[in-house]
Amino acid sequence: MGRRLIFREDLREKIAGRHAALQKTMPRHLETQAVVPHGALIVDNPVGTAPGLILEHEKGFIISLPGVPHEMVAMFRETVFEFIRKAAGGYGAIRLRVLRTFGLMEPQVNDLIVDMMGTGKEPYIGLTAKETGVDVRINAFGKDEEGASRLIHATENRVRSRLGNAIYGVDRQTMEEVVGGLLREKGFRISVAESCTGGLIGHRLTNVPGSSDYFEEGVVCYSNPSKWERLRVPPEVIQKHGSVSALTAKAMADGMRQVSRTDLSLAVTGIAGPDGGTPEKPVGTVYIALATPKGTDGEEYRLTGTREVIKLKASQHALNMVRRFMLGK
Amino acid sequence: MGRRLIFREDLREKIAGRHAALQKTMPRHLETQAVVPHGALIVDNPVGTAPGLILEHEKGFIISLPGVPHEMVAMFRETVFEFIRKAAGGYGAIRLRVLRTFGLMEPQVNDLIVDMMGTGKEPYIGLTAKETGVDVRINAFGKDEEGASRLIHATENRVRSRLGNAIYGVDRQTMEEVVGGLLREKGFRISVAESCTGGLIGHRLTNVPGSSDYFEEGVVCYSNPSKWERLRVPPEVIQKHGSVSALTAKAMADGMRQVSRTDLSLAVTGIAGPDGGTPEKPVGTVYIALATPKGTDGEEYRLTGTREVIKLKASQHALNMVRRFMLGK
Repeated sequence: MGRRLIFREDLREKIAGRHAALQKTMPRHLETQAVVPHGALIVDNPVGTAPGLILEHEKGFIISLPGVPHEMVAMFRETVFEFIRKAAGGYGAIRLRVLRTFGLMEPQVNDLIVDMMGTGKEPYIGLTAKETGVDVRINAFGKDEEGASRLIHATENRVRSRLGNAIYGVDRQTMEEVVGGLLREKGFRISVAESCTGGLIGHRLTNVPGSSDYFEEGVVCYSNPSKWERLRVPPEVIQKHGSVSALTAKAMADGMRQVSRTDLSLAVTGIAGPDGGTPEKPVGTVYIALATPKGTDGEEYRLTGTREVIKLKASQHALNMVRRFMLGK
Repeated sequence: MGRRLIFREDLREKIAGRHAALQKTMPRHLETQAVVPHGALIVDNPVGTAPGLILEHEKGFIISLPGVPHEMVAMFRETVFEFIRKAAGGYGAIRLRVLRTFGLMEPQVNDLIVDMMGTGKEPYIGLTAKETGVDVRINAFGKDEEGASRLIHATENRVRSRLGNAIYGVDRQTMEEVVGGLLREKGFRISVAESCTGGLIGHRLTNVPGSSDYFEEGVVCYSNPSKWERLRVPPEVIQKHGSVSALTAKAMADGMRQVSRTDLSLAVTGIAGPDGGTPEKPVGTVYIALATPKGTDGEEYRLTGTREVIKLKASQHALNMVRRFMLGK
């Protein structure tokens, strides 16, 4: 582009001010963040020091943002999105609605709504398979936002009538948000006893702001003594059936509910791999139990994937078990 | 491209076989996975059904892989990478070495090695800032792998002499892997008591295969009763200093070490936000304590970012505290 660089004193002051709020000494290098191409529009960085830049170029714009993910996201949300909208002239509207499913494979979801899909169909429906389930993405283009939303709405209802309770949430909602919302609504408190998931379920539940309203506590009982001492799992149950077994999962859930005095207790034990599998219980074998005021239920899964994928899938199945219980109430 | 599509019976059989191993009924839609462009090279999918495709096109290739992340990664590693290497004629070698640092801001790392950086310098050094620290990326291009590695090696030593212990790992190593390696080496066992991180530290430690060798257990003490009952934190400590305080963190670490009888116990309490901050203890205030055979140390942090970023940074600081203790031994 060959633009001349200018050192903008005003920008330097701003960067120094922001940096002073973050820590005491200002490294020399920060000064270079105030050197920007002549004529550049500065994008304010609300969570860091490096500014963003917008440059007109030929028929369009070049938008440059810092690479630190949360800085980039904050700047895009606060400034850049609105800038692009205005630059695009504000004509037309695209609306995206995501219906998030869990428990069905991608080809099964496809089979259930195949008549609504395909090139040229309006709105356009696409599927995205992730470890946490299959997302149904409904894209509509309308003259304005209302028109696009109307198109989405009708299609969403049709998809919902086909997929029913396999849909656990919409758009960016996560399983843990949905479960948290259901627990809050009914005033239930929950505790979790995790072996193979290692704390992931607690982590996911506590990613939701305000989760202390319904999340009491968790125990990551990675060793056998932890299962005996923290959760009162009878040593003979582990001896007889193994620490990865339906009865151990049930005893973990019951013990957790007893010691924490919560309405619900969720327990998971399994073999996340890559080692530890046997012919009877291969890697991916996972037992989940949910203790409730109505009794304790258990489920068994054979999951595939890497260690981290198995942990993630197990946590999703476990949270979905809570969701199903809460919906059934 | 206008290529004619063919239905490949042999591929269909393969897909059906793979699918049968995964579940019993084969949805109609899977059959379409056997329809591929004529002349396409089939990339085997070791962990799913959808095959990948490689097509010659003009001067290069088009490589198409399924979108499910772990399937795409597995296929790239097993087949595609070697295909590209061969297609590129095998001339020359690019080597990348990543030195992962924690505890320094990007401009600070920059200041320490600025004389080694810049356009035209060989090897080329770039910095990537993440929530888990700043990565120093050393890129070298040589006539062969040995030449490239030699270039990397010399530069790596120079960078190491500048950054010292701020470097916790290399390439894809994570803090939890490094900490796990140190614990295993010295035969130490660890337990964790997590409040604001909600299970993330346990999750991270147990992402490492074989972590049951050194990870005993964790308690996610999200409520005050959990801190009293599971960790023997004296209620008067919480009453007087608050559940987010240096003394509560210390009592959590001491209590965890007592009940779990591990060599080390790590404890974290803080305010992950977005609510719950006060003028004295704003969102991002985090107390970390590490109980060891030599006594219990505590640290205080003011972290910035969203709830999830604060949890991640707190877990990284906490694991780094264990690393520093193990290195100091």
